[in-house]
Amino acid sequence: MSRHLVRESATAPEEAAPRALLLAQRLRGRIGADKVLTDPAQLRTYECDGLATFRVRPAVVVLAGHRDDVVETVRMCAADGVPFVARGSGTGLSGGAMPVADGVLIVLSRLRRIVSVDPDNARVEAEPGVINLWVTREAAPYGQAYAPDPSSQQVCSIGGNVAENAGGAHCLKYGFTVNHVTGAEVVLPDGGVVHLGGTAPEHPGLDLLGAFVGSEGTLGIATRVTVRTIQAPEAVRTMLVGFRTVADAAGTVSDIIAAGILPAAVEMMDALAIEAAEAAVSCGYPEGAVAVLVIELDGPLAEVDEQFRQVETIADARGAFETRIAEDDAERALMWRGRKSAFAAVGRISPAYYVQDGVIPRTRLPEVLTEIGRLADAADVRVANVFHAGDGNLHPLILFDDTVPGAAEVAEELGFAILDLCVDLGGSITGEHGVGVEKKSRMARQFTSADLDTMQLVRCAFDPAGLANPGKLFPTPRLCGERPGVRTGADTHDPALGEVF
Amino acid sequence: MSRHLVRESATAPEEAAPRALLLAQRLRGRIGADKVLTDPAQLRTYECDGLATFRVRPAVVVLAGHRDDVVETVRMCAADGVPFVARGSGTGLSGGAMPVADGVLIVLSRLRRIVSVDPDNARVEAEPGVINLWVTREAAPYGQAYAPDPSSQQVCSIGGNVAENAGGAHCLKYGFTVNHVTGAEVVLPDGGVVHLGGTAPEHPGLDLLGAFVGSEGTLGIATRVTVRTIQAPEAVRTMLVGFRTVADAAGTVSDIIAAGILPAAVEMMDALAIEAAEAAVSCGYPEGAVAVLVIELDGPLAEVDEQFRQVETIADARGAFETRIAEDDAERALMWRGRKSAFAAVGRISPAYYVQDGVIPRTRLPEVLTEIGRLADAADVRVANVFHAGDGNLHPLILFDDTVPGAAEVAEELGFAILDLCVDLGGSITGEHGVGVEKKSRMARQFTSADLDTMQLVRCAFDPAGLANPGKLFPTPRLCGERPGVRTGADTHDPALGEVF
Repeated sequence: MSRHLVRESATAPEEAAPRALLLAQRLRGRIGADKVLTDPAQLRTYECDGLATFRVRPAVVVLAGHRDDVVETVRMCAADGVPFVARGSGTGLSGGAMPVADGVLIVLSRLRRIVSVDPDNARVEAEPGVINLWVTREAAPYGQAYAPDPSSQQVCSIGGNVAENAGGAHCLKYGFTVNHVTGAEVVLPDGGVVHLGGTAPEHPGLDLLGAFVGSEGTLGIATRVTVRTIQAPEAVRTMLVGFRTVADAAGTVSDIIAAGILPAAVEMMDALAIEAAEAAVSCGYPEGAVAVLVIELDGPLAEVDEQFRQVETIADARGAFETRIAEDDAERALMWRGRKSAFAAVGRISPAYYVQDGVIPRTRLPEVLTEIGRLADAADVRVANVFHAGDGNLHPLILFDDTVPGAAEVAEELGFAILDLCVDLGGSITGEHGVGVEKKSRMARQFTSADLDTMQLVRCAFDPAGLANPGKLFPTPRLCGERPGVRTGADTHDPALGEVF
Repeated sequence: MSRHLVRESATAPEEAAPRALLLAQRLRGRIGADKVLTDPAQLRTYECDGLATFRVRPAVVVLAGHRDDVVETVRMCAADGVPFVARGSGTGLSGGAMPVADGVLIVLSRLRRIVSVDPDNARVEAEPGVINLWVTREAAPYGQAYAPDPSSQQVCSIGGNVAENAGGAHCLKYGFTVNHVTGAEVVLPDGGVVHLGGTAPEHPGLDLLGAFVGSEGTLGIATRVTVRTIQAPEAVRTMLVGFRTVADAAGTVSDIIAAGILPAAVEMMDALAIEAAEAAVSCGYPEGAVAVLVIELDGPLAEVDEQFRQVETIADARGAFETRIAEDDAERALMWRGRKSAFAAVGRISPAYYVQDGVIPRTRLPEVLTEIGRLADAADVRVANVFHAGDGNLHPLILFDDTVPGAAEVAEELGFAILDLCVDLGGSITGEHGVGVEKKSRMARQFTSADLDTMQLVRCAFDPAGLANPGKLFPTPRLCGERPGVRTGADTHDPALGEVF
């Protein structure tokens, strides 16, 4: 979505990867020549994911048509020491599916079969290329739905959702992908196939499924995913509320939660985001609003009606100057249209923009927005803020002119400064977009070296050769040799293992 | 709770563990002599946890008074190659805190400080010895509560809850411990201290917190735990419903869920469990009931009232012959008293009993109960069934006379046959009691060797020397040497890594 900062990979593909090309030849014989691409013109499509600012042409693309194609490819990569990256629909925003120049990109979008639908036990099993929204489509005849709803849900794939632990507007109430995946069939980095979790809500032993979800391709490739479906709510009600100040809007969010109401979604947009959305889709947001909230409640009709009234009272007490209630699905769709098109809309008021994704404790919202404003002014850059206010997940859209030399770098620096701010306030460098290649340098800002080393222990256990999506997620490439910080005596202390006393 | 099958450890403590005793001497100088016990009379208290059927006297007990006592003890154990086991309140039912004869038992119950209460962000941070119910007590003034509620919640500790991923009657609606822990400070098996997760709902990187919760002490020891609190529900309503057949009761459960109602709890008891509870606590359950359901709804008053009526209608349609509604807290307490005292109550109608814990898909309930009846008849053993029906979590109570030679073994075999049945139906060998020492042999029934090897990869990454709670969770002790199944070429296939094609 964002367009800027295009960085070609340092290595020209023609020079790279003789090993990968030799592997491609043999692979054609094993899985079929039509599934293995090495023609540079064909490879171009796969240079980047949704973070188009980073582009690398892979040496080989495999269009897997069956689970066994994935197994065969990974086994050959493991045997030959060739790195590999999995890709679903390629909508990720942190470069998690960016290829490596001397490696194989394994495209999973042809694995798009719904394996089973079990409404009695509220489970759907799907191949990784299945589109997020298809799961709900399968479950809908039984009055059920798949809860995680990234904005890209019409195109993003379940496998990618699992890799990035995707969120969405309704995570506030329903949780992230990790809360909805109960099992996965996984091809490990050595080509072995294992099953993590299953269909039951909990399993004994180490919960490696939890670690796998959100591991961004560094532990293996999911070839089947079992998700739970939820009962579709009896009623959904949506309102749009305009405020004169950001503090009033943020205070309303805190008051709603404090009143014991858990909305399905609470979205906030600031003045610049409203202006952009209005220009793009004429969503008719309240004129003069400095901040709007889109608040959606769902559940049993009786509950929703009563809580809806409470929310109105709370917003009024916080100085809401206009409250609109969606009377039907069309009106609800219009309210959401402004919010969901906000990213694209910003493209109409700025030549380019850069989306960031950070998390703060909900109670710090006004403070963070003031500080973002201060940082933006200091950098002489405009920032539009669109976010999942209910769970403190910010999406600052940093506007810049990509024809001005250095402007992209200024935008990126500002984005990182905002992430630092999030960490300092006890939040996180990403809420739902993942770390990928974009934010790996920030991991050391959020985690101590001991915490990161502990993650590396597990990565190395799964992938000692470092072939699974290398260069993502972790701040520094590390060889999986000796374990860091193994003690030789009670009195030695390796600082890499962090604070002891 | 269950009393039978007492198995002393093979090694007499006096002969065991000279290394551990030497370590104890040095440890006294480091953390204080009063915290280090080696007197056999004092050690006796710590021989077993709630699974009193397995007893082992540890060589050394450390009564940790501070996080640093844990760090120091673990570091010395790591340096000297002495195994260690952590223990909270010792209420676990699968022997997860059973000591090892040549090792150190680290008792955490003195680490019972509430570190912080943050109602605005719905977080409580606690030391591991804090009692489960204390968290709710701290949160209550802010209208909040800690959701996971094992039956032992008045005595069990948060650290033990984390180790075993504890459940409770209200897991159906609110999820297990893993769904409520957002962060932990952990002492790794080499004595390093790391932080997993934090206060935000999700974190980038590998979700090792998810793997840690439920790892039964095999990955390290939590010394601080951050949990989320939920808004205490506005209304709670409870009903007790009597049925003439188990199938009617089970059908009611399925119909409630299918109607889109998610009760806070749906508990079922069969005729023998009812008889026992009645004899013990005179809970006044419907006379002549072959099965009763205790159904609790919570949430906003408007929702609860409407759904309560729906549940009554559903139960009536399934042939409920008596429905009682708790009119006040005292009546609700009485309904729960029968259920919560059922384990102990069974002790009044049988000299001894053995509790099992398995999970099945909810829709298979009637079938499983019929089959349990058949297995019980064949073994000439009585089985009382008490369970969390909403999520298919069975607790068969297997009655036997411990004065009859061989009766305990017959009971244990029957318990394992029931677990096999659970696995065959797509369920699990444990819902909430953990694997511990009791059920480790059954892990291979539920998981393939490839799945178990993958868990071992992670255990070995954390604990290459195998000192952290050895002999628990995993079916066979394994040395962490060469990685199983590392491939040397694309065409070799190690069967230990499981199915490939």
